Amino acid sequence: MSLTKSYDPDNIFAKIISGEFSSVKIFEDDHVLAFMDVFPQSEGHMLVISKTATAVNLLDMPEDALQKVILASQLAARAAVAALSPDGVRVVQFNGSAAGQSVFHLHFHVIPMWEGRALSPHGGNPVEADELEKTAQKIREQL
Amino acid sequence: MSLTKSYDPDNIFAKIISGEFSSVKIFEDDHVLAFMDVFPQSEGHMLVISKTATAVNLLDMPEDALQKVILASQLAARAAVAALSPDGVRVVQFNGSAAGQSVFHLHFHVIPMWEGRALSPHGGNPVEADELEKTAQKIREQL
Repeated sequence: MSLTKSYDPDNIFAKIISGEFSSVKIFEDDHVLAFMDVFPQSEGHMLVISKTATAVNLLDMPEDALQKVILASQLAARAAVAALSPDGVRVVQFNGSAAGQSVFHLHFHVIPMWEGRALSPHGGNPVEADELEKTAQKIREQL
Repeated sequence: MSLTKSYDPDNIFAKIISGEFSSVKIFEDDHVLAFMDVFPQSEGHMLVISKTATAVNLLDMPEDALQKVILASQLAARAAVAALSPDGVRVVQFNGSAAGQSVFHLHFHVIPMWEGRALSPHGGNPVEADELEKTAQKIREQL
């Protein structure tokens, strides 16, 4: 049952944190990392994770790490709004595959939205890093 | 533009906090309130809000109040999992009507999910308080 599964240290976000896998980063510190989703549902779709907490989902997430991740999500949302002028932003966090979770390291999605523009399916087509970098650069400038 | 609108002190969640409107409460303290969504997308759908921060959305939310609300959302999610044994839980937070926000007092949705059971539309049919109370009682017992 995915809600109670144990943490897999080889999940892709752990490899992004360790540097084994690359990502288009927006910001990071000792505790958190915000980076571009390679399967974006909209322009500016970011993921925000803890670099220290090995939590599968919200249920097993330490309180201190959770607080740091939500503040980082707020920072990412504010920068995306300033950079891209969306009409709205969704912050979503999935727990368990039944809820749409596909990487089992707790993460918040920060998804800018525009009136009349539908979101792409979750886990749709990947976008190349150099394309993501153009948007990432705009967002970083607003941090 | 809804992302930068000013806080309306007459919004329905402000009236729930003041007691002018009733709600089926799960828990509250001086800072936060978790209560049943009257337009539930699934059994156990809760809303978690700050009782002190008059923030429209994530962009204008004070950091301390945001941290308290996400911890309360975690508490609500854990209790719902213990009470209802869902296969997953979604935590979602909408900013701006373009993102699906309809009450302009920042809130997190905590939505239990089950395999093969689709979510009801957001803002679908209201459920009577005595019906919500049955589920609320189960969740409260797990706090």
